[in-house]
This record gives sequence, structure tokens and C-alpha cells, in this order.
Amino acid sequence: MLPLNFNIEKEIEGELGRAGTLETPHGIIPTPAFVTVGTKGTVKALSMEDVKNTGADVVLANTYHLYLQPGDERIKKFGGLHRFMNWNGPLMTDSGGFQVFSLGAAYGKALNKVVSVTDPSQLIPERSSESDVPRLATIGSDGVSFRSHIDGSLHYITPEKSIEIQHNLGADIIFAFDECTSPTETVQYQDEALERTHRWAQKSLEYHKSKPNSEFQGLFGIVQGGREENLRKESALKIAEMKTPAGEGFDGFGIGGSFAKEDMSTAVKWVNEVLPNDKPRHLLGIGEQEDLFMGVENGVDLFDCVAPTRRARGGTLYTHEGTINIGNTRFIDATGPIDPQCGCSTCRTYSLGYLSHLYRSHEMLASTLGSIHNLYFIINLVKKMRQAILDGNFKEFKESFLKQYLD
Amino acid sequence: MLPLNFNIEKEIEGELGRAGTLETPHGIIPTPAFVTVGTKGTVKALSMEDVKNTGADVVLANTYHLYLQPGDERIKKFGGLHRFMNWNGPLMTDSGGFQVFSLGAAYGKALNKVVSVTDPSQLIPERSSESDVPRLATIGSDGVSFRSHIDGSLHYITPEKSIEIQHNLGADIIFAFDECTSPTETVQYQDEALERTHRWAQKSLEYHKSKPNSEFQGLFGIVQGGREENLRKESALKIAEMKTPAGEGFDGFGIGGSFAKEDMSTAVKWVNEVLPNDKPRHLLGIGEQEDLFMGVENGVDLFDCVAPTRRARGGTLYTHEGTINIGNTRFIDATGPIDPQCGCSTCRTYSLGYLSHLYRSHEMLASTLGSIHNLYFIINLVKKMRQAILDGNFKEFKESFLKQYLD
Repeated sequence: MLPLNFNIEKEIEGELGRAGTLETPHGIIPTPAFVTVGTKGTVKALSMEDVKNTGADVVLANTYHLYLQPGDERIKKFGGLHRFMNWNGPLMTDSGGFQVFSLGAAYGKALNKVVSVTDPSQLIPERSSESDVPRLATIGSDGVSFRSHIDGSLHYITPEKSIEIQHNLGADIIFAFDECTSPTETVQYQDEALERTHRWAQKSLEYHKSKPNSEFQGLFGIVQGGREENLRKESALKIAEMKTPAGEGFDGFGIGGSFAKEDMSTAVKWVNEVLPNDKPRHLLGIGEQEDLFMGVENGVDLFDCVAPTRRARGGTLYTHEGTINIGNTRFIDATGPIDPQCGCSTCRTYSLGYLSHLYRSHEMLASTLGSIHNLYFIINLVKKMRQAILDGNFKEFKESFLKQYLD
Repeated sequence: MLPLNFNIEKEIEGELGRAGTLETPHGIIPTPAFVTVGTKGTVKALSMEDVKNTGADVVLANTYHLYLQPGDERIKKFGGLHRFMNWNGPLMTDSGGFQVFSLGAAYGKALNKVVSVTDPSQLIPERSSESDVPRLATIGSDGVSFRSHIDGSLHYITPEKSIEIQHNLGADIIFAFDECTSPTETVQYQDEALERTHRWAQKSLEYHKSKPNSEFQGLFGIVQGGREENLRKESALKIAEMKTPAGEGFDGFGIGGSFAKEDMSTAVKWVNEVLPNDKPRHLLGIGEQEDLFMGVENGVDLFDCVAPTRRARGGTLYTHEGTINIGNTRFIDATGPIDPQCGCSTCRTYSLGYLSHLYRSHEMLASTLGSIHNLYFIINLVKKMRQAILDGNFKEFKESFLKQYLD
């Protein structure tokens, strides 16, 4: 029996978009769905009770962070990540690839590309002279060598290692180890990186399917290819048709990449025209309102993004009429809710004036109440898109929402 | 009709301690009770739902903080503090006196004692050369002049002003404005300060009882007197017998002061032997386990303290076998709860290992889960003391708890 069961209930006429259900060992995800991010095994500033109350059906935790702290083997000893973090619903982990690459890049350090080297001992990132904790990553043909952003310790992750870590964590949906390239790389580099991603996908798939965990953990292959149409389509085809020697393929697909905003819809369309219809598709790391509409319309079933909670902690809150910043003085005396059209517990209970007070007083509750609101807003926006697909009026809903939102 | 109604159900044989109920306009407080502190109109790191779930019957907010930010008049416009902070149960505010004095002292600045001056314009604290935001407080015969710790702005608080602020906030129980002296002051200074505290108590009482708010807000007078038996007894007698010209007295009593630990039980006993039996007594700012037993045994009905939440945020957690620090490496792999004898939601749901991970990862949820536990622990400890009084076995309970706790 397969670990995941995906059913399409209705499609958007003339488009790739669809509404369905994704059954996992820990419950059903009605799709399309927004996946709440709980990076280190906790959704920042929220209890799991809070997360449930926002309407969240599924949570995604980051393999990179949990591997480094507290360690995947330790989490396994605690009975797996569901139990460790007290989330009994559908759970995903990413492959760790994105963090390994982006933390290297994010800290302004060069990413070493020693692609011909296979001996991990030759892949040790040099210590940076600028810092005691260098964060270089070095790519080899079989994996990536990097230093921990916490203590500078050296690590080497291969596709097999990524899957092994994700088996220890035990999420319902896991991802193949991939290389996430910057859109500023040359086409030649994108091509090389894609070849590597496909090789790593095959290794991830074979390793995963050889283990008993594949009976209760579904593996998604990741399509890369940057902004190039031929690379995107080639990648979608390769990942879609990839099989173990025994003929087992991926249980679903991820669409990866650091997108420039204007490239996203074309890239998603290229990929989803190629990917098989009967398996779920996850657009990785995307969560802004317009992008969610674009993704759903073009056949994406799952989205994850830290934006709702990160922006809430910074004081940016979503409303049906666009975003607001709670730090603005006009909210100090405002007795109404963040958004009169919102049904979240924050909007039903607290005034903008109180939120403004908490924010100005640097009280943690400001982050909690803001995160509840933003998550509820985004999760329920995608739920409404789903309902609109079922009701046959997705385009009208999209138009009316975006008109009010962008005005 | 009086705003508060206090009933004694049972006393500890041969002691001053008693169990009872205190009816307020927003609900009944079974006493003795621990009062949860929500300094700025929020219990740090917790939602009001979390606070309720710890078993909290009553919350105390700080007048000084709310007066400065967001302002008591603003809170009044929001419908009062209950509504502003979403706490519909019994609510208290302190007088602001303690913060005015302790913030002056806490920042290492001298407290000016110009006690003969009555003109507030002569009470302006000098700007300190050490900082752009000096925080001096200057005591005059009618009030205290101080600078805001937030923006250095100048403020002058009299007994009437303190009551006016507390009327705007609208708590069920409010406190008379007093001077809280350091135990290191001379007896002569304690004597002068006490005379001032009594004069201010009379002014607080008369001002309060002249307003319609006295129908739904009870006013507690504060007994001071440092570590001196004669001053403590004199103060208790004066405050107990204090009346308006129309014959109205205080609705309850606070016992104030910065206590040295060894002086506390004698001071509490001196005071409670004098105070009338039929009104509630609140020991201000005390919340350690041994002190709670001492207070209850000696006739204290209410306690408030920031210790449970402040210590939780610092990683110190209560257990029946003493406190632990979650930062200790021995908890990284601990699969059990903080305290197997505890019934709080944190202990019922999360392992020490998960809490250790959250704490080491600097996740806000560490503060939330720790605060829920510590508050539940202390609130329910006092509830158990109450039950033990009703069951006639307070001393046995005290002995068995402290034996396990202090061992």
C-alpha cells in the first residue's frame, strides 16, 4: 500500500488547477492547502493548540535545523517528530538542501563548486577569517559539505543521509535532496546543477524505497531548472518518470527554486503541464497572496512559507485591503479588529489598539496574536480558493479578492 | 452596597490563617489565592486563554506601566482594562507607588527626599549627567515627582492622581498610594515615611469614596512600617481604623514593604494580629513557596508575584522536589515531564527534552510552556493550601510539601 492517496475532486475549467484530498498516515489534507512552517519543531510564538485553531491541516519542519539541533537520532528516541513537537496531524520535512545552500549564500560567503570531487575529505569548507563560525558550503558530486551555523562544526550531507535523517524524523511527507540554485547563475551552471539534482533524486528515491519507512512516509521528488523553459520541462519529465529498479516512482512532486517574481507563473505552468495529474504538487517556499492564486490556478496543491509568521513578528499584518504595519501611530487609538472580515481568534477578541500597545511594549503576545491572525488569513484564503474551485467560481473569487487586496 | 464581599469558611486552628471567598464584580476569588501578574496588561508570553487554563482566578496589572503606556485615559476609552486586555475575571491594579520608588532605586539613582516641599514645581528631578533618560524620583509631602523610564518625560503622582488613574483602568480591587521604603533606611526615616503613607492613605480613601467608581471598585489600604514592630502595629491600627468623614473604611488591606526574608513572617504576624478579621489581606509582591505557606498560615488571603513567569522565562522551573534549570544538559535526553506530580498542560503534553530543545533554540514557546507550568504550580499550590485548611490538615500538608521541596 502507498503511504499517500491523492484524489482530485474538481478542476478549474480550462486551467491546470484542481481541488482534491491528500490522505496521509496522520490525516487528510484537503487541497489546495497552505502548509504552516515550524522550522525547529515549533511554529514560532505559537503553541500547537494555537496552530490548530488557525485551521492548519499540515505543518512542515526543516530537516537542516533539526539535524543540527537537537539531532534527528535524538528525535527518533523521543518517538519521532510528531510526538516530540506534539503535532498529531499530517507533517512534512524538507530535504535540508535549501538551507544548506541558502545559509551559505545568505551569510555572504561563496558557495564552492568543486563538482568533480567525490572524496568528502576534499570538500572541507575553509574557515573564514571574518568569523569564528564560517558558514561555507562546498558541493561535491555526491553531496554537500557545510559548517553548522550554530557551532561551526563540519557536516557532509548526501541524498542517502538526507533521507536517513528524514526517516528518523518520521514525517508523513519527505523530500528528495536537491541543489537549489540562484536565478543569477549561468545557464551552464544551472544545467550542471540540474544534472546533479536528478542524480541525487534517483539516489534519494532508491534509498527511500529500500527502507520500511517508505510504507508510511511519502517521498516527493523536486523539480528544478531555474528560469529556463527547456531545463524546467526536462526536469519535470525526468522526475516524473524516475523509478527504482523495481518500478517505484515518487509519491508527489516539489517545485523548487529561488524565483524572481515575474518568472514564477511561467515556471510553474511549464512544470505542471508535464507532471502527471494524479499526484500532489508542492510549490516550495511560496506564500504571498498573489502567488498563491497563481499557483492554485496553475495546478499547485501545496504551498509552504515562513512569511505569515515572520511578517507578523515584524508587525506586518494581512487584511483584505492589503497589509498594514501595527507600528503605525494611527492604530494606537483604533478600537476595531485588524480586519473586520477576518474570523480569527485575534480579530474576534482584540482591538488594534491593544495589539499596538503590545507591539510598542515589546510584549511576546504581540507576536503570538499577530502570527495567529496572519496564519489564519493565509490558510483560510487557500481554503476559500479550494471552495471556489468546488463551486466553479475560482476566477471570480480571485478577481474580487485581488481587486480589494491590491487596491 | 459594597463592591467586595469577603466570607471566611474555615480557620487554621490556633493560627491566623483562614480559607474563604472574596466576591468581586467580575467573579469570586476562593482564598487564599495567588494573583497572576500581568504588568503591562498582558501576562508575559501567555494568552489570556493560557492564563485561565493555569487555574488563575485573578490577575494584577501595574498602574505605573499602564499610566505611562498606553495611558489610563486611553484604556478608559477602550472600555477599561478588563476589556482592553480580554480578562473578564477579577482584576487588581496596584497604586504605582512601588514602581515609582523601586525604579528610581533600581537604576542606581538617589531617591530625593524633599519632604517639606508642597509645590510640585520644586520637585522636578534633576537630569542626570550619566544618561539622557534620568529616572530620579523626588518625594514631596503631597506626592512623588519622577521621570518615565521609557522617554524621560516628567510626571507627578499624588494619592488622588493614583486613584484617578486606577478609576480609569477600572479594576475590581485597587490600592492606596503609599511610600515603599527600603529596609536599609533608618528608623527615623521609616517613621517619617510611614506618616506620609498614612496621610496619603487618608487622601486615597477620601478621594475614592467620593466617586461613583467606589461602588464597583474596592480599595485596599497599605500597611507599611519596615521591620519595626511598633511601626508595623501602629500602621496596621491606623489603616484598619481609617475612615472618611462619612465613616467609610478600606475594603481590604495590603501589606507592603521590601522584606528581608527573615523579617517577613514576624512582620506579617504583627500586622495580621491587628487587622480586622472580616476583610481580605494581600501580601504584596511575595510568591516563593515557603513564603506562601508562611503567609497563609499567618492570615494572608492574597499574594502576587512576577517570580513564576519571570523565572520561567529565565529557564527556572518549579517541581515538587525543588527548582530545576532547563538549561542543564541532563534534560536534553529526558523523555519525562518537568514534574510527574504536575497536572498542567505543559507536563501533560511535552517532554523535558522538547523544552530543553526550545530553550536552547531560543524559541518563544519555551517561555510560554515554562510560564504555564510555573504559574499552574504556584496557583495550584495555594489552592491545595486552601483545601488543606478546609480539610483541617494545613500543617500536615505544609510539612509534607516543604520536606519534599526543600530536601
